[in-house]
Amino acid sequence: MNFTDNKEQDGKQMSGMHSSKQYDQDLEWIRSKVLLMGGLVEDQFRDAMIALEKGDEVLADRVIKGDEKVNRQEVELDHSLTELIVRRQPAANDLRNVTATGKVITDLERIGDEATKIARSAKNIRSRELLLPHHYQTLAGMSQTARRMLREALDAYARMDREQAIALMALDAVIDREFHDMMRDLIEYMSAEPGTVAAGLDILWAAKAIERIGDHATNIGEYVIYVVDGEDIRHTDYRLQFQGTMI
Amino acid sequence: MNFTDNKEQDGKQMSGMHSSKQYDQDLEWIRSKVLLMGGLVEDQFRDAMIALEKGDEVLADRVIKGDEKVNRQEVELDHSLTELIVRRQPAANDLRNVTATGKVITDLERIGDEATKIARSAKNIRSRELLLPHHYQTLAGMSQTARRMLREALDAYARMDREQAIALMALDAVIDREFHDMMRDLIEYMSAEPGTVAAGLDILWAAKAIERIGDHATNIGEYVIYVVDGEDIRHTDYRLQFQGTMI
Repeated sequence: MNFTDNKEQDGKQMSGMHSSKQYDQDLEWIRSKVLLMGGLVEDQFRDAMIALEKGDEVLADRVIKGDEKVNRQEVELDHSLTELIVRRQPAANDLRNVTATGKVITDLERIGDEATKIARSAKNIRSRELLLPHHYQTLAGMSQTARRMLREALDAYARMDREQAIALMALDAVIDREFHDMMRDLIEYMSAEPGTVAAGLDILWAAKAIERIGDHATNIGEYVIYVVDGEDIRHTDYRLQFQGTMI
Repeated sequence: MNFTDNKEQDGKQMSGMHSSKQYDQDLEWIRSKVLLMGGLVEDQFRDAMIALEKGDEVLADRVIKGDEKVNRQEVELDHSLTELIVRRQPAANDLRNVTATGKVITDLERIGDEATKIARSAKNIRSRELLLPHHYQTLAGMSQTARRMLREALDAYARMDREQAIALMALDAVIDREFHDMMRDLIEYMSAEPGTVAAGLDILWAAKAIERIGDHATNIGEYVIYVVDGEDIRHTDYRLQFQGTMI
């Protein structure tokens, strides 16, 4: 909706301006909104983790309620992108950037969903005292990695920085390892203390949600490289090539 | 790539044809390829479940290898859609169908990923004999629901059938309930028999993957309604409205 207003202003201010220039400005406007959506999603994730760590149900409810705003932004930004294509009819090369932005929006919305799942875990966690402090510490470590990945994904998208995208993608192996270590540890603990199975599963679902946030940040990194390189690196061994050298 | 060939043939066969007619034909061509991709993904899911139920590692490996083909199809179809937009410059109303098709492709690829996860569970499952027959039966029931949802999602997309889309979305509540029942049952079992925790988690991850396939099928139903109704129903209470009346 705001996009339309912006268009009309453009028409007045920039009549005679070359269409591809208008396209650039429109796209930049949408990209800035995507970054705002990214900031909102970062806040949701951070608050969900605080709610989980402190057992703060009020904050958890605020996160769950806040997901509506994330969803609304997804729908609005999708509309803005459609409008951009119809009005500016970008060439194939320009369209790459539009497509990538559309996919970034989808991944951000899914990160919002995962934050909501963490907030639900915060509310549901049964017999919180059955878990040990180091379980929460491991979870906090995972969330630190995921938060860093999300921040770097948004930075890489903002600056279309290929190197930063590659660096963040290398972190996906770190978070996967953290998740598997946590799972192994919890299996041992739950086996030794059968009364802890339900509580252990609650925290494991939260860990799974964090690991997925890492996956979505990695996807964003892939789209950045897709735009910069002009080639589609999804589903290649690209990441493996760089893993280990970057971290 | 094939899309380009198809285009050239079109040029010969239909010179002078109205551009929107060409647009319709191109889009139908892409939609038929999307349905083929859907069929492949259905096969992957079915084979992954057989591999899990029978403990067939050879079949599990075939599913894991087969995911490359799913991924390749995603990349090719994304390219075809981009080409369609650039060549035919569809109007806003037509673009809705293109956008929805792009999202269907993404969800199909993610269903492929979940099938691969089930195949990996089939290979990794520890001490298969620690689980009881009824655990596998519950899992088979879930997969039947998910398979039905996927079939109906593809049918609804093929025929742009709004009613079918709504009916399949109502099944999402069924599969969620099946998943939660299974989780409750497994928690009880693992708590009573601590030696079964690792094996129980293996089967629980597979159940989670099946439940996600239901989510992706639901997404496809939403895109169908989005195209038919010309309005964006994502993130509304639309589903709730119809739940219970359809099943």
